[in-house]
Amino acid sequence: MVMLGIDPGFAFAGFGILKKEQNKAFLLDHGYLRLPPSKSLVERTGLFYEFFNQKIQVHQVDHLSLETPFLGKNAQNFLKLGYLRGILYLLASQHKLELHEFAPRQVKLALTGFGGASKEQVAHVIMRLFPNLTAPEKSDVTDALAVTLCGVWQHNNIMSKLRI
Amino acid sequence: MVMLGIDPGFAFAGFGILKKEQNKAFLLDHGYLRLPPSKSLVERTGLFYEFFNQKIQVHQVDHLSLETPFLGKNAQNFLKLGYLRGILYLLASQHKLELHEFAPRQVKLALTGFGGASKEQVAHVIMRLFPNLTAPEKSDVTDALAVTLCGVWQHNNIMSKLRI
Repeated sequence: MVMLGIDPGFAFAGFGILKKEQNKAFLLDHGYLRLPPSKSLVERTGLFYEFFNQKIQVHQVDHLSLETPFLGKNAQNFLKLGYLRGILYLLASQHKLELHEFAPRQVKLALTGFGGASKEQVAHVIMRLFPNLTAPEKSDVTDALAVTLCGVWQHNNIMSKLRI
Repeated sequence: MVMLGIDPGFAFAGFGILKKEQNKAFLLDHGYLRLPPSKSLVERTGLFYEFFNQKIQVHQVDHLSLETPFLGKNAQNFLKLGYLRGILYLLASQHKLELHEFAPRQVKLALTGFGGASKEQVAHVIMRLFPNLTAPEKSDVTDALAVTLCGVWQHNNIMSKLRI
């Protein structure tokens, strides 16, 4: 099972790719995509699709994990996040990925034991779980790894229940 | 110049395709895509992409015209509309379509002379402009034809200015 977790955004899109074999999870890839602000939204949408389309193929991803968005102060940002989520839904459809979605509180709760945890707390736990990880530059990366892990854990739970 | 205008929606997505040659515009295709509510959002997103990807190829579309969305009462519907707009931006990127966007008021004003016109007024004008059109079943279709026409008119204006 290969899980791709993404924290989408038009400025930075963090991602993590975890492979699960027996009881061990391996970090295959992680980082972020920076979409050049000089390019149009149309062009950036195309680049976003191409980048993750390639990641899915290279790592033979079969699961996708995302955070559910909430409407913040800026409706236009919320709408733009919708554009990127639409692209990820399309990729899930084209590559037959199993989709896992989590509310932000669920992710924080699963990682830190507290649903109202800060980004720093989440990053702290991620760095402890992946000791070989060099400190990611952006919290987008640790957020993406957090949602990737949630996807893996949810999949584990489903699988262990099926075994009973 | 071949203009595709779309009124996207997860229930019904109306569309019109107009070809412009010299001073005449021909309606190449129109109708709507109905996405089965029994399918998941991921599957429907995939079907939406496939449908319009094919229309663009069959009719050699090179322009895309859309209405800009506004945040209504339902934030989740607004977000879902974002998914479909993201797909359309991707298609614009993949097929190098020129994008035209209009606020709802602009479309109504251009068609009826009144920015606060009803859907029925818009439909009335569309039926008058295309006398061979059999009454479309859904206002999604007349709305899509309205935004298609706006795209054609905007393109005409730009072209006529370039000629001066």
